[in-house]
Amino acid sequence: MKFEFRNPTHLVFGAGTLSKLGEVASAHGKKALLVTGSGSVRRNGTLDRALSSLHTAGVATAECSGVEPNPRLSTVERGAAIARSEGCDVIVALGGGSTMDAAKVMAAAVFYEGDLWQMMAGQENRILPTKALPVVTVPTLAATGSEMNGGAVITNKKTTVKSFVSAPCLYPKDAIIDPELTASVPPDQTAFGICDLITHVTESYFNGVDGTPLQDRFAEGVMLTAMEWGPKAIADGSDIEARTQVQWASVVALNGWVQAGTLSPYPVHMIEHTLSAHHDIAHGAGLAIVNPAWMRFAAGTRPSRFAQFAHRIFGITLKTPEDPDAAAEGIDRFEAFLRSTGCPTRLSETGIGDRLLERYASDTVLVAHDSEGRLPGRPPISKSDIVDILRSAL
Amino acid sequence: MKFEFRNPTHLVFGAGTLSKLGEVASAHGKKALLVTGSGSVRRNGTLDRALSSLHTAGVATAECSGVEPNPRLSTVERGAAIARSEGCDVIVALGGGSTMDAAKVMAAAVFYEGDLWQMMAGQENRILPTKALPVVTVPTLAATGSEMNGGAVITNKKTTVKSFVSAPCLYPKDAIIDPELTASVPPDQTAFGICDLITHVTESYFNGVDGTPLQDRFAEGVMLTAMEWGPKAIADGSDIEARTQVQWASVVALNGWVQAGTLSPYPVHMIEHTLSAHHDIAHGAGLAIVNPAWMRFAAGTRPSRFAQFAHRIFGITLKTPEDPDAAAEGIDRFEAFLRSTGCPTRLSETGIGDRLLERYASDTVLVAHDSEGRLPGRPPISKSDIVDILRSAL
Repeated sequence: MKFEFRNPTHLVFGAGTLSKLGEVASAHGKKALLVTGSGSVRRNGTLDRALSSLHTAGVATAECSGVEPNPRLSTVERGAAIARSEGCDVIVALGGGSTMDAAKVMAAAVFYEGDLWQMMAGQENRILPTKALPVVTVPTLAATGSEMNGGAVITNKKTTVKSFVSAPCLYPKDAIIDPELTASVPPDQTAFGICDLITHVTESYFNGVDGTPLQDRFAEGVMLTAMEWGPKAIADGSDIEARTQVQWASVVALNGWVQAGTLSPYPVHMIEHTLSAHHDIAHGAGLAIVNPAWMRFAAGTRPSRFAQFAHRIFGITLKTPEDPDAAAEGIDRFEAFLRSTGCPTRLSETGIGDRLLERYASDTVLVAHDSEGRLPGRPPISKSDIVDILRSAL
Repeated sequence: MKFEFRNPTHLVFGAGTLSKLGEVASAHGKKALLVTGSGSVRRNGTLDRALSSLHTAGVATAECSGVEPNPRLSTVERGAAIARSEGCDVIVALGGGSTMDAAKVMAAAVFYEGDLWQMMAGQENRILPTKALPVVTVPTLAATGSEMNGGAVITNKKTTVKSFVSAPCLYPKDAIIDPELTASVPPDQTAFGICDLITHVTESYFNGVDGTPLQDRFAEGVMLTAMEWGPKAIADGSDIEARTQVQWASVVALNGWVQAGTLSPYPVHMIEHTLSAHHDIAHGAGLAIVNPAWMRFAAGTRPSRFAQFAHRIFGITLKTPEDPDAAAEGIDRFEAFLRSTGCPTRLSETGIGDRLLERYASDTVLVAHDSEGRLPGRPPISKSDIVDILRSAL
């Protein structure tokens, strides 16, 4: 285990903390660009409360609304232009993962010279951003973890490629995490968020280096907590206790605490990103389809780890430390959990067929690949493996 | 669950990372005050390697050696005077918890006006420090967690009171955590460190607020990892894999990741601090005596939590969710684990008798007490309770 770690984001967590937005943002300047998504924050009154908090604290606002799911490079460019022309000192992201990711890249784009796509993974002569406006994130969905990390995923609609960027300057200065804001999220989106957060930790749990027993326990803790409290949040969206536990799990699942030292790639995310770049499918829904299929593909490579998963998450008794039957049962139980939350687990449920399987595979390895052209992971995955994985999920 | 959190410390973790000290420290200036303890780093060559790394990177050094276990206010004053007179830009702490704690308070003392003791808990008109020199911690013992948090414990020898201070400016800028540096720690000190790190998480696990299921899992993860790998590190100090796992557990046990949102007081630490202020006893050894005794006292207040501990840590079957017999067995098993590592679990083993029990109780509530004069915790503890707890551990 050899690694470096730093996460400087200041968290303000708890029901009702939206009211602190103005005070928190005012530490960074006098004018904020408020970035929002498709309009739900306007309809449910959250936007008005955010504006009121900002204005009361003496922070003037400009707005960039309409960030779409799977946010586009063109939207980032639009937001950065507003931030520049309006002279904004700080960017406030009020929304889900797409809104926060777009806002973080807008903050860097304000200072970035040249083509923005040059900062994304998979580019030759990639140039990471080194400076960004301060960002305050206010998530309205428990899913992404973007509120407290330095990463962002952006889609290039011209090339239908979805890629990511991660840099120290992209860490939000503050994250105001108010579980009450997630109370109006409908059951399906709640379930997709829960799948997303669980997948963040299964990625490092299965694909990380050996010799990380404490990180394993942390990952299992996130899974068990999400699987205990997630169904309660889906059953009753107004259950703020359940919303609180799910949201804390989602923050921790991708703020680096679980992944520190695991040096993990994210093959399941990489494959899903390609699906949602090509199709109008929610990221968490895509993960619910890809993850169990990937697990069945990968289980034989690391049988003791999959057996451990079966035992510690589902209490399945192991006949041997590598018990393949127990491992398979664990994956079945995990898939059944996802189905029980309302997630799709087959491509056909989302209308995606087998026409573009080869294209998905090619696009995926374009973003991340080893010297043999394979998607990094345990095991590394060739293009034909990706096709096989997706075919098994048709 | 409602809280704020920030931990900005930059971690460099892994065997061999001491060689990066110079590069890391040079980012903060041209002259470092190197703070060390009783001389073991000089004898085993670690000091020379640290100096070599600093000098190679162009960082000149002044030294403050001889920080004692349970570091004294007078030592902090001595170090701050050296830092001032030598014009140091950065303080490097190379040693165990005492050395790091002293170095952090020296860094603040350089700028602090008036009596340093005024920054410590328990003082009327307490004035927290707001500015400090940058600190780089290099722990040589896996125990305290001081390398990645903003707290420090200092003893006032004039009054025999041991108190603590915690402030944002006390977070080290960087922590270089090289498990190889702990290979020469003898078995008893290794065991005391393991007891210390476990106690950091049992404090919040038992004394924190309700409704923190993920934090519970994290705390259990730290306990299970320390109890799995600790005995290996004690049995073979040169087992770098075991040293690595124990050290990572010790960092995480008190860097805030487990405690976030638990709002926990630390009654067991408070009681132990009084013992080690009065007697020449290692902090971790004192905790091994106080913690099981405190657990037996507290178990009836929160039976389901103690039953959960018995079940999840020791696999003890629960007849009911509050099963008191299982809870008692869990505490017995925990005490047996501590004994198996070589820790004392009775005051008499350390030569401490019953003469000063009332004094320990008075001194403890001096540092932290509620409006009724009781030590905060679950339950709050009166002075006579403290006497009873310690008497049960004679």
